[in-house]
Amino acid sequence: MIIIGEKINGMFKSVGKAIETGDRGVLQQIALDQLKAGAQILDISPGPGLDNPAEVMQWMVEAVQEVTDAPLAIDTPDPKVMEAGIKAAKNKTVINSCTAETAKMKALFPLAAEHNSDIICVNISEKGIPNDSTAKCELAVLMITNAMEHGISSERLYLDPVILPIGAAQDQASKVFEVLAMFKTLCDPSPKTVVGLSNVSNGTKERPLLNRTYLIMLMAHGLDAAIANPLDVDLMNAVKTSEILLNRKLYCDSYLRA
Amino acid sequence: MIIIGEKINGMFKSVGKAIETGDRGVLQQIALDQLKAGAQILDISPGPGLDNPAEVMQWMVEAVQEVTDAPLAIDTPDPKVMEAGIKAAKNKTVINSCTAETAKMKALFPLAAEHNSDIICVNISEKGIPNDSTAKCELAVLMITNAMEHGISSERLYLDPVILPIGAAQDQASKVFEVLAMFKTLCDPSPKTVVGLSNVSNGTKERPLLNRTYLIMLMAHGLDAAIANPLDVDLMNAVKTSEILLNRKLYCDSYLRA
Repeated sequence: MIIIGEKINGMFKSVGKAIETGDRGVLQQIALDQLKAGAQILDISPGPGLDNPAEVMQWMVEAVQEVTDAPLAIDTPDPKVMEAGIKAAKNKTVINSCTAETAKMKALFPLAAEHNSDIICVNISEKGIPNDSTAKCELAVLMITNAMEHGISSERLYLDPVILPIGAAQDQASKVFEVLAMFKTLCDPSPKTVVGLSNVSNGTKERPLLNRTYLIMLMAHGLDAAIANPLDVDLMNAVKTSEILLNRKLYCDSYLRA
Repeated sequence: MIIIGEKINGMFKSVGKAIETGDRGVLQQIALDQLKAGAQILDISPGPGLDNPAEVMQWMVEAVQEVTDAPLAIDTPDPKVMEAGIKAAKNKTVINSCTAETAKMKALFPLAAEHNSDIICVNISEKGIPNDSTAKCELAVLMITNAMEHGISSERLYLDPVILPIGAAQDQASKVFEVLAMFKTLCDPSPKTVVGLSNVSNGTKERPLLNRTYLIMLMAHGLDAAIANPLDVDLMNAVKTSEILLNRKLYCDSYLRA
């Protein structure tokens, strides 16, 4: 299971303040803490409302790279900010994210091709978020095709079915199980699957419990990766336990500490 | 999700002592505690090593029935003890359990038919526990056919795929997902599915965590019932959260206390 650590995001107070004051140490410590806790990829997001998001993205990437060679997920909706982040990165990168909107695909697939980035493909088009499995697969195929046209192998894609808040669209959570299985069959080699986990609990009062319970369910249906909080010990113990039950890691009595 | 509360079992020290001293109050309190915690059915097992297990079973059933009308799962490998328990019960009963062994089926399906009991059908034959899905389905069909011959409707059956300890047979845990789905398609109306949950963590050092993580996974694959410990608050919160995510209970902010 690939955990993409979500904590280096300007929306979190400590990160927002570090961006304001130019304190690289704060970002670097969060990077190291997340890696120690089991994250394999670090998400980097300046957050909204900045005057100079491209500069901030570049600064954040450079700061984090001073302490780790771990892959970075460059997280922004703005293709120009994305380009600044990807260009600043010496480490392996993941574009977070591209949608099936034409303008986005035109900007981001060539960028991924040029810089050998992996790319998170979010199941949204100009028409919105499809709510049935077939329509979701159609959008996924559109993105896979676009990637192939740019010479990007399907195993470099992370297909994201889009997780909705349980309080707003309760019937959608379990529909994702089937979609994950279908995504894996769309091409060979199979694309990876990913979710932005915390969306499921947005607006609820039991966020960590809902997040980790849903992640276990998604793992039992083949999910490959999640953007999540690796500093949540209960969440990471759930991941480790799921990997044991799914026979992906060998059981030993001390598997939580392994 | 049907939780069959496992705590009234002579193998637990307090219950074993209550059996020795004839203290009905201990059993009655455990019954009420389990029901309050969310159990819908109460398992009743005298445990091994008794000189007079049939009498003990009868006494346990009578004691519990003094405080509740909840269904009882009469839990014994001995058909004579089973008969004593079923006959003592005024409440709805579940036979826990029958295997696909000829002698067991000959004794227990007529008993279930006569007393209108539901019946847990464990996937074991004289040859042992099959380890592939097809062989498991063959045994299940054998038991379904036997039940039908005795006029027992398939919805009264709880098919148990047999859970093995993760430390001994790590590859088996995730194979159960597929088996659960197959069991549901074997006849119409669908039989229920059930597991003896705690088997998965037998011999491990992280029993509650493994139990609840596996239960979440099984629920995501359609499991109907589990023999488990309803007094484990984390387990029951996992069940409630899973029911929300599976859209079986309506979400509200206070769903854990609902």
